[in-house]
Amino acid sequence: MIVIGERINTSRKLVNEAVSKLDSEFICNEAKSQVDAGACYIDVNAGTFVDKEKELMEWIIKTIQKSVSVPLCIDSPNPLVLEHQLKICEKKPIINSISGEKNRLDSMLPLIKEFKPGVIGLCLDDTGMPKTTEQRVSIASMLVERLTTAGINESDIYLDPLVIPVSTDHVQGKNILDTMYILRQKFVNVHLVCGLSNISYGLPNRKLLNQVFLVLAIQAGLDAVILDPMDNKMMSNLIIAQTILGQDEYCMNYLKSCRSGVCV
Amino acid sequence: MIVIGERINTSRKLVNEAVSKLDSEFICNEAKSQVDAGACYIDVNAGTFVDKEKELMEWIIKTIQKSVSVPLCIDSPNPLVLEHQLKICEKKPIINSISGEKNRLDSMLPLIKEFKPGVIGLCLDDTGMPKTTEQRVSIASMLVERLTTAGINESDIYLDPLVIPVSTDHVQGKNILDTMYILRQKFVNVHLVCGLSNISYGLPNRKLLNQVFLVLAIQAGLDAVILDPMDNKMMSNLIIAQTILGQDEYCMNYLKSCRSGVCV
Repeated sequence: MIVIGERINTSRKLVNEAVSKLDSEFICNEAKSQVDAGACYIDVNAGTFVDKEKELMEWIIKTIQKSVSVPLCIDSPNPLVLEHQLKICEKKPIINSISGEKNRLDSMLPLIKEFKPGVIGLCLDDTGMPKTTEQRVSIASMLVERLTTAGINESDIYLDPLVIPVSTDHVQGKNILDTMYILRQKFVNVHLVCGLSNISYGLPNRKLLNQVFLVLAIQAGLDAVILDPMDNKMMSNLIIAQTILGQDEYCMNYLKSCRSGVCV
Repeated sequence: MIVIGERINTSRKLVNEAVSKLDSEFICNEAKSQVDAGACYIDVNAGTFVDKEKELMEWIIKTIQKSVSVPLCIDSPNPLVLEHQLKICEKKPIINSISGEKNRLDSMLPLIKEFKPGVIGLCLDDTGMPKTTEQRVSIASMLVERLTTAGINESDIYLDPLVIPVSTDHVQGKNILDTMYILRQKFVNVHLVCGLSNISYGLPNRKLLNQVFLVLAIQAGLDAVILDPMDNKMMSNLIIAQTILGQDEYCMNYLKSCRSGVCV
C-alpha cells in the first residue's frame, strides 16, 4: 500500500501558522513523524495562501527534503505553481491532481510530458461530477489514454474514482467501489487512489465512516491512499485489511503493529 | 442483515452459572437485550452441559420464548437434542449446524425433512478442513443439492464457508471471502453466514481483526451473521458497511444508530 501522508496542508490551523512563520522545525517534524508512521510520500498543499502559494510551496518542499528522503506529492491545481515545484523536487514526485476537465488537462499535459511525474487523475470532466460507474470508468479510461500517449507509464498513473458523500446520494459509495473493481480489472498496472474523507461529508462521527470505507476500498483494489498516517485507527484498519486479504505472510506486519501500539 | 445473537452460550461463564441455577430472569434479560440491540434470531448453545444438554436446552428455549418473539437458532451437533428442541420451537428455527461430513449429514437429514427448519451448512466434509476456495464451493454445492432434495428452500439455507484463522494460514481469509463471492453468484437465494471470530484465533487484539473481517465479509456477500449484538463496535461496523454499500437510503439507519449511541 502506498501511503501518502496528508498532514502538511495549510488548511490545518497549526500547519498554516507554521508556514506563515516559516517554522521549519514544525514542518520537519510533521514530515518525519509521517514517514515514521508509514508514509511513502508526503503531500504538500499550501492552497490557502492564494497569492504566495508558489513561494511558500517552494519553502515547504525544500524544508521537507532536508529532513526526510521520501518523495513528495505536490498538491496544487495551478500549473504555474506545479511547474516550479517539479523543478526543485529531488525525487520523482506525484502531481495531485489532474482531471478530465479539458482546460485543466490541456494545461497540465505539457508539464507531465516534460517532467514525467506520477500523476493522480480524478474521474471528473466538464460534464460535472460523475453520477454512475460507467461515467467514472469512461473518464478514467480517457485519462489513461491521454497520459500514456504523453509518455507516462501505467504504473505512474493513480486513478481517483472521485469520492462523493453518501449523504448526498446513498448509492455513491457502492458506485465508487464498483468503479475500483472495474478499473482494477481493466488497467492491471495503474494505481487506484482516493482521498477517503469525502465519503462522510455532512454526517456525524465521520471518522467511523472513513475507517470502514478504507477497508471496503482496499478490498475493491485501492493500493494507494491519501490519509493521516498518524491516525492509528485508520492505519490499524489498513494493516488488518491487508492481513485478512492474504497480503501479510505469517501476520508479521499485524503482529509488529500490535507491538508498536498501532493495532490496539 | 440477519443478526443471530450469540450470547446465550454456556461456554460464557455467567450464562453457565445462570443455566446451572435455572435463573430465568438472567436468560430473559440476555434474550431481550439482544433483540433490543438488533438480533433477529437468538442462538442457544448448552454444549458444555454434555449429559444434561437436552433438558437444559429445553428449559432455555422455553424461557426465551416466554420473553421475546424472535425465532431461535438451535446450536447443537447432537441430532437427539435437536429433534426434541425442534418440537418445542414456537417459530421456525435455524439449526446450527450441519456439514458435509457423511455421518453428521445422514443423521440430520431425516429431521430436516420432517421439521423443515432453516439450516446452517458448514463447508466441511470427511476429508477434513477445506484448504481452497474450490473445496469450499464444492462442499457448499453438495449441501445445497442435498438440502433442496430434502425439500428445503434455498432461502432457508445458510452457507458458512468455515472460517479458519489467518494465524494458521495467511491466505485463508482471502479464500473465505472469495468463496463467498462465488457462492453469492452461484446461489442467488441462499444466505451466507459465518461465525467471525475464528478468523483471529491465536492472534492478539482479536476484536480488531473480527471488526474488519465483518466489513470485508459483508462486501463479499454475507447477509447473516452470528455475533454479539451488544458489541457496539461490531454493530457499528455492520451498519456503516451497509450505509457505504448503498443499502441505507438517506443514511437513515446510520443516523439513527449515531443517535442511539451505537455508532459513536
